[in-house]
Amino acid sequence: MPSISKKGHLMPESPIRKLAPFAEKAKKLGIKVLHLNIGQPDIETPKIALDAVKNNNITILAYAPSEGSESYREKLADYYAKHHINVDSKDILVTTGGSEALSFVIGTIADVGDEIIVPEPFYANYYGFASANGVKITPIASRIEDDFALPPIEEFEKLISPKTKAILINNPNNPTGYLYSKEEIKKLAAIVKKHDIFLVADEVYREFIYEGKQHYSILQESDLDNNAIIIDSVSKRYSMCGARIGCLVSRNESVIKTALKFAQARLSPPTYALVASEAALETPESYFIEVKEEYVSRRDVLITELQKIKGLKVAKPNGAFYCIAELPVKNADDFARWLLESFNLNNETIMIAPAAGFYATDGLGRNQARIAYVLEKESLKRAVRILKEALTTYNGK
Amino acid sequence: MPSISKKGHLMPESPIRKLAPFAEKAKKLGIKVLHLNIGQPDIETPKIALDAVKNNNITILAYAPSEGSESYREKLADYYAKHHINVDSKDILVTTGGSEALSFVIGTIADVGDEIIVPEPFYANYYGFASANGVKITPIASRIEDDFALPPIEEFEKLISPKTKAILINNPNNPTGYLYSKEEIKKLAAIVKKHDIFLVADEVYREFIYEGKQHYSILQESDLDNNAIIIDSVSKRYSMCGARIGCLVSRNESVIKTALKFAQARLSPPTYALVASEAALETPESYFIEVKEEYVSRRDVLITELQKIKGLKVAKPNGAFYCIAELPVKNADDFARWLLESFNLNNETIMIAPAAGFYATDGLGRNQARIAYVLEKESLKRAVRILKEALTTYNGK
Repeated sequence: MPSISKKGHLMPESPIRKLAPFAEKAKKLGIKVLHLNIGQPDIETPKIALDAVKNNNITILAYAPSEGSESYREKLADYYAKHHINVDSKDILVTTGGSEALSFVIGTIADVGDEIIVPEPFYANYYGFASANGVKITPIASRIEDDFALPPIEEFEKLISPKTKAILINNPNNPTGYLYSKEEIKKLAAIVKKHDIFLVADEVYREFIYEGKQHYSILQESDLDNNAIIIDSVSKRYSMCGARIGCLVSRNESVIKTALKFAQARLSPPTYALVASEAALETPESYFIEVKEEYVSRRDVLITELQKIKGLKVAKPNGAFYCIAELPVKNADDFARWLLESFNLNNETIMIAPAAGFYATDGLGRNQARIAYVLEKESLKRAVRILKEALTTYNGK
Repeated sequence: MPSISKKGHLMPESPIRKLAPFAEKAKKLGIKVLHLNIGQPDIETPKIALDAVKNNNITILAYAPSEGSESYREKLADYYAKHHINVDSKDILVTTGGSEALSFVIGTIADVGDEIIVPEPFYANYYGFASANGVKITPIASRIEDDFALPPIEEFEKLISPKTKAILINNPNNPTGYLYSKEEIKKLAAIVKKHDIFLVADEVYREFIYEGKQHYSILQESDLDNNAIIIDSVSKRYSMCGARIGCLVSRNESVIKTALKFAQARLSPPTYALVASEAALETPESYFIEVKEEYVSRRDVLITELQKIKGLKVAKPNGAFYCIAELPVKNADDFARWLLESFNLNNETIMIAPAAGFYATDGLGRNQARIAYVLEKESLKRAVRILKEALTTYNGK
């Protein structure tokens, strides 16, 4: 039999995916599974975006321009201007989801064997895209005790080698919900300038920031024109994960020009989704206000309830819709599987995302889980009650 | 300034893209450009697919399963059964266009430095995906004198090294329009079995076959379960290039399992496009009969008219909607640019795709161009008239 590539063997399996068969089994047994494990919001997509697709008058579903249409990119530039990010349509390359933007960025800035420094825990698929490109992720641990703040900048400095091409952050962060401050961004800006490497910021949760806090984008740093690259996506902003439209944004011309070559090879982003995404830019501000209010109250319910569980530690998130909880168990992988296989409370159980998959350093995060607050408050309350009972039973085994 | 990757520098620019600014300039001067250079059909998308999207009742545009929905993959298996290809839904992984299928296949079967043998001329983006993966394309020349038939199988044998992971064909072929015979496929099957490598067939033009000829798929070879991988796409079949839905098909479990890891990292194919693609499977047979009739008559007009041009050589295509013409010029690149910059006939000119970009061997195809017959007959006639006049003027310079 012909052999599979080494790269194929090294590609990680999604940490959540491994649990999926156990969730299926539980459902077949008539047990309702509350999904705290996923990043798929239950919020409705703005009607203006849905209607644009329903009312489209396409007769030939043709390729879009590889870089996205000029009109969409111009409107995106206006969107960024409203967020104090000064870019032109030519600084924007539209991609098939934030995923593809990340993949293009890695290909554009790093070769096989090169390194990218990422604070851990981080979005697990960063590891997948790095593996697919033969690029090494150099993790730098952020700690639950510090609410997952930026690790000391000297720690970054120690890790920078001639192979280091970039520092990659996710702001606000999935899975921790941490929002980097302006001061932290300025520290990162200084270090990438000093070492002449890139600062890549995945800012897909830009709008999901609570209690009047402000998001500070790396592209608000006027001095970072050549070093800064933003990864973005419509997925969470407009609750349209299935659109698969994202973009990469940089004032560095060579970055955009090179990424465009990768974009040309795959021809075009999906046309219907572009119709939805362009219309979504007209979403009224009231939509975001409502969504934000909903998430804040969900977060508050979740954190308050979680903090009542003895032995559980949780960092209060200021952004996105996740938190990392340290559980009073040794192995969250085992516990997560047990929840699906052997536990229910009134025929309900919960699915959580074991956090080890969000760390690159072996051994870290073993007793942590990511909990997403993409369910309504009543379900969240029930979910935490299940978690509490389950921990008692599990630890009493 | 931080540096761009070596890979990024090596990524090829689309050969057509290089000409685009000259076409723009001509249009600004009021000259109409007839596009013989592109693979975007002017045929309407089946109404059943367009209507499915218009009438969708999605309220949350959610992620699709990474591998595509079970229902779509089951219907795809039925579609393949009708084409004498015996596969199960589990043998199918739905992708974001045929492009992504190819990208996943290369990642799944080849590491940096590995080689894939491809008869040239070939679809230019193969080179892009190989470059992005650090994989080398080993070309084997097919010749216009042989109508671009499969090169002698001994020539393949000479090129197979321990680094060779696959032979990749496009059947019917873009850019030549060549349709491989059952005998040719059987020869390829024997050689990949002998050397224990993969046979990858890009069969996206399966339906575009003329004069009652039959397509013979590599998966009709029952003995090739572990070695055969099909790349497929809805783009040309239903004239929905902008959907960005394709798939890879293989009865080799490890291939599907490994490719799924790449698929999980990018989360999901585009949801609206899946709605269109699933509905498109119900397209009535009459649609294909009409489309085929249209393409046959376009091809006949194009080839008949081209053959009237003195010094021009053309291989009559039996499939797809392209042909390669050898022009009485030294450098088709220069001629293509001149057509846009310095020539017009009654305020019209043509854009052709210089063929050198479809060859990996330096120097081959320099006097050739790919001509697509994706325009209606009257436009094609005018286009060939322009080509004829242009050649006379160009050669008289």
